[in-house]
Order: sequence, then structure tokens, then C-alpha cells
Amino acid sequence: MLKPLGDRVILEAQDEEEQTVGGIVLASNAKEKSQTGKIIAVGNGTVLENGETLPMNVKVGDTVIYDKYAGTEVSYEDQKYLVVHEKDLVAVVE
Amino acid sequence: MLKPLGDRVILEAQDEEEQTVGGIVLASNAKEKSQTGKIIAVGNGTVLENGETLPMNVKVGDTVIYDKYAGTEVSYEDQKYLVVHEKDLVAVVE
Amino acid sequence: MLKPLGDRVILEAQDEEEQTVGGIVLASNAKEKSQTGKIIAVGNGTVLENGETLPMNVKVGDTVIYDKYAGTEVSYEDQKYLVVHEKDLVAVVE
Amino acid sequence: MLKPLGDRVILEAQDEEEQTVGGIVLASNAKEKSQTGKIIAVGNGTVLENGETLPMNVKVGDTVIYDKYAGTEVSYEDQKYLVVHEKDLVAVVE
Amino acid sequence: MLKPLGDRVILEAQDEEEQTVGGIVLASNAKEKSQTGKIIAVGNGTVLENGETLPMNVKVGDTVIYDKYAGTEVSYEDQKYLVVHEKDLVAVVE
Amino acid sequence: MLKPLGDRVILEAQDEEEQTVGGIVLASNAKEKSQTGKIIAVGNGTVLENGETLPMNVKVGDTVIYDKYAGTEVSYEDQKYLVVHEKDLVAVVE
Amino acid sequence: MLKPLGDRVILEAQDEEEQTVGGIVLASNAKEKSQTGKIIAVGNGTVLENGETLPMNVKVGDTVIYDKYAGTEVSYEDQKYLVVHEKDLVAVVE
Repeated sequence: MLKPLGDRVILEAQDEEEQTVGGIVLASNAKEKSQTGKIIAVGNGTVLENGETLPMNVKVGDTVIYDKYAGTEVSYEDQKYLVVHEKDLVAVVE
Repeated sequence: MLKPLGDRVILEAQDEEEQTVGGIVLASNAKEKSQTGKIIAVGNGTVLENGETLPMNVKVGDTVIYDKYAGTEVSYEDQKYLVVHEKDLVAVVE
Repeated sequence: MLKPLGDRVILEAQDEEEQTVGGIVLASNAKEKSQTGKIIAVGNGTVLENGETLPMNVKVGDTVIYDKYAGTEVSYEDQKYLVVHEKDLVAVVE
Repeated sequence: MLKPLGDRVILEAQDEEEQTVGGIVLASNAKEKSQTGKIIAVGNGTVLENGETLPMNVKVGDTVIYDKYAGTEVSYEDQKYLVVHEKDLVAVVE
Repeated sequence: MLKPLGDRVILEAQDEEEQTVGGIVLASNAKEKSQTGKIIAVGNGTVLENGETLPMNVKVGDTVIYDKYAGTEVSYEDQKYLVVHEKDLVAVVE
Repeated sequence: MLKPLGDRVILEAQDEEEQTVGGIVLASNAKEKSQTGKIIAVGNGTVLENGETLPMNVKVGDTVIYDKYAGTEVSYEDQKYLVVHEKDLVAVVE
Repeated sequence: MLKPLGDRVILEAQDEEEQTVGGIVLASNAKEKSQTGKIIAVGNGTVLENGETLPMNVKVGDTVIYDKYAGTEVSYEDQKYLVVHEKDLVAVVE
């Protein structure tokens, strides 16, 4: 299992429903990169300048929207995940 | 529903009245991008370096003007929204 | 009415006297952009890192000089205004 | 009169003695831009992060040397002045 | 032995299993640079602005994933290591 | 006399011994710019964020080495000086 | 003697054993620049925002590895040294 460090979360990309144009399934390179993911692990939180740790505002299981181009892709046991700083999460889907 | 994180707000673009030149309705690509939106959700506020949270100065229902190029476009249930940091809101329309 | 947020002020551009060369009124694109404006609305002030708000040093009615290229142009009820951060105001005309 | 804001000072450019080469007065575009000025107005001082104001280290009447390219040129009643942040003043001529 | 300074850790690159395409072992320049390493030494921690030292969140023996392009390669006794700031470690493999 | 402001010092360039190649004195544009100078005036010191002034670590008469490209050249009474921030002084020659 | 200022150390480059390829000594421009040095002088330490000085973590005699491209080369009495900020030292060789 992966444990994110600091204010990071680990996301599993959401399955997007296939988009079709006139019945033709679009090839993957014709689709926009998804900006939605499900949190599967969270770090301990941001460390402030006074040494205290600020707890995370999101939790495992949350579906979140993140800033385009944010995060680092990591591979672990043949699966790809995205590790994102909490400050790059823009909203929670409730 | 979308819940913005931190000092972010979610905006719904305002309908602009069509601008016409000599009776001809301008195509959408000939119009300037609107900088006005209506707030439909607000985050909890900015977290200061001492760990306290600064409450938001705007609320749901406010019509606001935001800095050009600010914000992240997000799609949710077939509708597009703009997520903007509070610091990029320049004024409230009263 | 527009209410500026944070440390911003809203300026109304000052009328400049027409400059003429040999009696010929110069077209507007031949004139330098004015850097003087009159304040018609002020925000609540800068929020410091400790959460306190620093009151503004300028008030409605002040004529101010601002840094070239500073500010955001906004349109409201068919009139253009300039929204400027207080730190980009260089001097008050007394 | 102009009142500078924050940690700014207003300078009046110093008259430089004409430089001549072999008796020929050099045209103004052949001379280096002066970096010396006389202070005609000072702001209230820098505001620190704790909200206190740091008094200025220079006063009206001081002749100062400023960093090349620092400052904003402003026109007021047909005269040009330079508005400079105190941190861009390098030395006082005593 | 090498002792990292500040918030740095020293990593030993992990052996990656050879990847083959149709039985042909790929030459090393055809493989992606590994982003996983094992910590063999840790620094004392980040020094905060108030002078206190924040202890490290990782320890010798941890397998970690680090940001691509992070770190400095150093050679010591004919072996190459990577020295990485703790803030560039994204997750611990547990 | 020139009085430097803040954390600045004023340096007088050191005379370098002429370097010759095979008895031929090199023209000045063939020599590296000296990075050594003698302090002839010091400012009051750096002002910290809490408003206190940190005294200077160098004094008039010290010979110092400064970072290449640091400082501002100023002319005063037909002589050129270099004004350098204390943070750009790398070492004192004792 | 040279006394480094602030959080700087002065390094003496380490002699590298000549590398030969098939018995042929490589010309100096074919070798990588060494990143190892021996500390011959240390400054007083970093000054924090509260005015306190943080003592150095390295001492005279330590052999250290430093970040590539870090530091300023200085000449003193016909010998070249490298002056490096402590934050650019990555590890101590023990």
C-alpha cells in the first residue's frame, strides 16, 4: 500500500463513460483528460511554520476535482495513481 | 453538489445580453468572455499561517466580478462552472 | 453599485484635457494612457497574516496616481472602471 | 501637491552640469540618465506584517542616489517627478 | 558513509525487473527512469523559522516514491546515490 | 560623503596589480573584473519583520569579497563606488 | 585568511585521482567537475527572522558534497576557493 506524505492525497482515476460521436466510440487520445478522482489514501496534513500540523479537509472515499496538470503520476503494482497536494484539490463532489 | 475547498468559490456564468451590431447578432466567438458570475457555493475560507481560518467575505447568491484568466473550469452533471480563489474576486455587485 | 474586495479601490478615469499639436486634436491612440483617477469605492483593507485587517490609507473622493499597467478594467452599467490594489497607488493628489 | 503612499518618496531630478566633449555640448540622448534626486515628499513608511508602521529613514530635502530603473515617473502640473520605494534608495548624500 | 544535511535523505535506487517486449530485453535507454528508492540515511530534519527542528517523517529502510527530476546525484566509493529533500518524497510504500 | 541605506555598504575598488603576459601589460578589457573591495561606509543594518534592526557584521576598513554582478555602481565627486547589500558580501579578508 | 559571512563555508577542492581510459590520462576538460570539498572556514550561521543566529551544522575539516553549480569561486593569494551557502551542502562524508 502507498502512504502519501505531508499534505498529499492519492487518487484513483474515475472511469469516464465513453463519449461517442454519432455512435462511434472516440479513441482515447480524442478525449479530455479527466480531472475527477477518488481518494484512496491521505497524508497527515500540512505542517505550518510554527511546527503544528493542519489536519486534512478531505478523507478516503471522497470524490474530488483537481487542478489540471496538478499532481505526480506514480505506478504501484501495475496500476497508475495520481498523487496530488491538497491545495490543488478544487472541490469535493457531495 | 460541489463543495469548493479552502478559499475557493464556485461561480455560475451570468447570461449576457446579446450584443448586436446593426441588428446582426454577433457570433459567440466575437464577444468578450464575461467576467461576471453568481456564487453558488463557497469554501470554508483561507487558512492563515497560525492555523486559524479566515471566514469568506462573499456568500452564496452574490454576483461578483473576477480577474480575467482567473479560475479553473470544471464540468459537473453536464454543466460547466468556474472555481475561483477569493483573492481573484475583485468586486461584489450590490 | 460595485463594492471592491480586500485592499482594492475602484477608480473613475479622470478627463484629460485634449492635447493638440498645431491646433489639430490628436486622435485618442496618439495619447498616453492616463495614470490618474478618482476613487469612487474602497475595500475593507489588507488582511495581515495574523488575521487583522489593515484599514485603507485612501478614501472615496481622493484623486490618486497609480502604477502604469496596474489594475483590472471592469465594465458595469455601460461604464468602464479600473479596480486597483492599494499597493499600486503611488500618491494622492492633495 | 502630491503625497506619496506607503514607503514611497517623491524625487525631483537634480540638474546635471552639462558634459562637453571638446567644447561641444552633448545632446541629451548621449548622456546617462541621472541617478540622483532631491526628496520633496515622503510617505508614512513601510507597514510590517504585524501591522506596525516603520518610519522612513530619509526626509524632505535629502539628496539621494537610487537604483537605476527604479521608480515610476509621474506628471503633475506640467512637471515630471519620480516616485521611488525607500528600499530602492541606495544612499544619502551628506 | 554519507550523512545527509537538513531535511535530506539518501536513496539507493531500487532494482527494477527487466522489462521485455516479445522476449527481447529492452536496452536501458528505452526504460523510464525509476522513481522508487530505498532510504539509507536521513538528515536531522527541517529547521523552522523559529529555530526549532522538525523531525523527519521517514526513516532508514523505508521504500519511497519521489518526484521525477527531484534530487541530486552523488557518487561515493564507486556507487551512485540520490540525495532528495523530504518535501520531494511523495509517498512511502508500506 | 555618501551614507548607505539599510543593509548596504559602499566599497572602493581595490587596485589590482597589473597582470602581464610575457612582459606585455594586458589591456583593461582583457582582465577579469575584481571582486574585492574596501568598505568606506556602512548602513544601519537589515530591518527584520518585527521592526528590529540587525547590526552589520562588517565595518569601515574591512576588505571584502563580493558576489560577481552584485551591487550598484554610483558616481560621486568624480569617483566611482560600488554599493552592495551585506547579503552579497561572501567573505572578509583578515 | 578568509572569513566567510552568514551561513557560508569556504571549501578547498579535493584532489581527484586521475581517471585513465586504457592507460591514457584524460585531459581535464573530459572530466566531470568535482562536487566534493573540504571545509577550511565557516561563517557564524543563518540569521532567522526573529534575529537569532542558527549555528552551523558543519565544521572546519569536514569533507562535504555540494550541489552542482552552487557557490562562488574566489581567488585569494593565488589559490582558488569555493564559497558555498550551508543550504547548498547536501551531505557530510563521515
